[in-house]
Amino acid sequence: MDRRPIGIFDSGVGGLTVLKQVVRFLPNESIIYLGDTKHLPYGDKSKDAVIRFSIENTKFLISQDVKAIVIACNSASSVATPVLKEKFNLPIVDVIEPTVECVASDSPKSVLVIGTIRTIRSKVFNSKITSLNSNISVSDRACPVFVPMVEEGAFIDKDSDLYKALEKTISHYLADFKGKVDSVIMGCTHYPLIRDEIASFIGDGVKLIDPGECSAIKLKEILEQNEMLSDGYHKFTKLYVTDLSERTREVVKMIMGNGIEIEEVNISET
Amino acid sequence: MDRRPIGIFDSGVGGLTVLKQVVRFLPNESIIYLGDTKHLPYGDKSKDAVIRFSIENTKFLISQDVKAIVIACNSASSVATPVLKEKFNLPIVDVIEPTVECVASDSPKSVLVIGTIRTIRSKVFNSKITSLNSNISVSDRACPVFVPMVEEGAFIDKDSDLYKALEKTISHYLADFKGKVDSVIMGCTHYPLIRDEIASFIGDGVKLIDPGECSAIKLKEILEQNEMLSDGYHKFTKLYVTDLSERTREVVKMIMGNGIEIEEVNISET
Repeated sequence: MDRRPIGIFDSGVGGLTVLKQVVRFLPNESIIYLGDTKHLPYGDKSKDAVIRFSIENTKFLISQDVKAIVIACNSASSVATPVLKEKFNLPIVDVIEPTVECVASDSPKSVLVIGTIRTIRSKVFNSKITSLNSNISVSDRACPVFVPMVEEGAFIDKDSDLYKALEKTISHYLADFKGKVDSVIMGCTHYPLIRDEIASFIGDGVKLIDPGECSAIKLKEILEQNEMLSDGYHKFTKLYVTDLSERTREVVKMIMGNGIEIEEVNISET
Repeated sequence: MDRRPIGIFDSGVGGLTVLKQVVRFLPNESIIYLGDTKHLPYGDKSKDAVIRFSIENTKFLISQDVKAIVIACNSASSVATPVLKEKFNLPIVDVIEPTVECVASDSPKSVLVIGTIRTIRSKVFNSKITSLNSNISVSDRACPVFVPMVEEGAFIDKDSDLYKALEKTISHYLADFKGKVDSVIMGCTHYPLIRDEIASFIGDGVKLIDPGECSAIKLKEILEQNEMLSDGYHKFTKLYVTDLSERTREVVKMIMGNGIEIEEVNISET
């Protein structure tokens, strides 16, 4: 048994949707979440910078005595995972590998990846899926309006004009793929918040894949195998960010509800 | 007479809407535009960083032999204008001061400022307008979904779902102000591209103020006063960016049309 917390990091607070999946599959675990909001968004930064930030985030979480790390950020997952795994001696799970394994073993005929412009341009999901199972046809679509819509809480009030705008935006991005794909990978941490709206447009028979869920399941397997699960004694969740703006508070409240404390931390000092 | 070009800089390519206004009011002038896309967006950076970038941009433009500078970026305008005016000995026009002067002399009863979250939070337009004319009531609204919508070209095809999404988004942000304001300041360089849609929602009697237009008129006055206008001989327009991505190419094409060349430049070396 291991009562130490699980560490999760992301470039911002979108990764809280990954935290929610970890809580769902590992309800007895303590969690320390770090959102590197000072350097948000990682998608705009160079590969070297993202690796450097990811190392700093991991060092901070290890200084907080975590037993495992979840990389809840697509940009960091795509460039920093091998470096972190080599450099640090604890279980590390990202949001891309477990998703790709899950999709490849599922053997759908055709998968659609949706995400930010950078994630889609990187083709990281496409190449990894195809290398595991070359029979799967992978298409993709960047949906850059989704993140600001989600952060504005467009999904909250179904009678609002912004909800109608969200529905039209979903139709704009996904109409070409309707009836043509078996699965959709929500390749951005914000998208699970509009899961219902995407599902309702794309249709009942299509499987929506949440990388946060795949990561949480993978992490659970690893902790079980290594007898590192906690019993829930003195369980806690802590949320740190590297830059605490009013906007960050609003988005955290939207994802997590009221009552969660957020602490600003200067991780370059740790 | 002075045939040297006018230098314009912005954190990205949104400032090309300002360039268009400069071309409109000063059709004989050569222009060198610099988009500091490597550091985009300035709104997320510290004041010191924005001042440092603005100095570097100005130095680069001066190294290209410009006769005047237009700061086409709201974030740079709000923090770097006094520093640049003190440090460099050439006419410098930003997008905030001329707009505020224009609004204050207009004496509307009530003005709405729309912009990005950072611009609206800074209250820069509100405080400057009120200090010039305390009879004007200034309200504001951050519209963070507008920039990604504009960059997706939502305004281009009126039959598209994204156009309908844009209309609903405009309604969401501006419904509370309909019939209640005399003028709207489009406090973000992207917004002039959806000027018609904003105008059509907010109503005929409301004046839409484009800061790029105010800046271009101010620049024209200064060049006339100092006998620095060109006669259009060997006129050219050059567009530099500090990081040239496919996305940047797309947005430039959307604003300027086909046929404009873009050159990537490393300005830290100049």
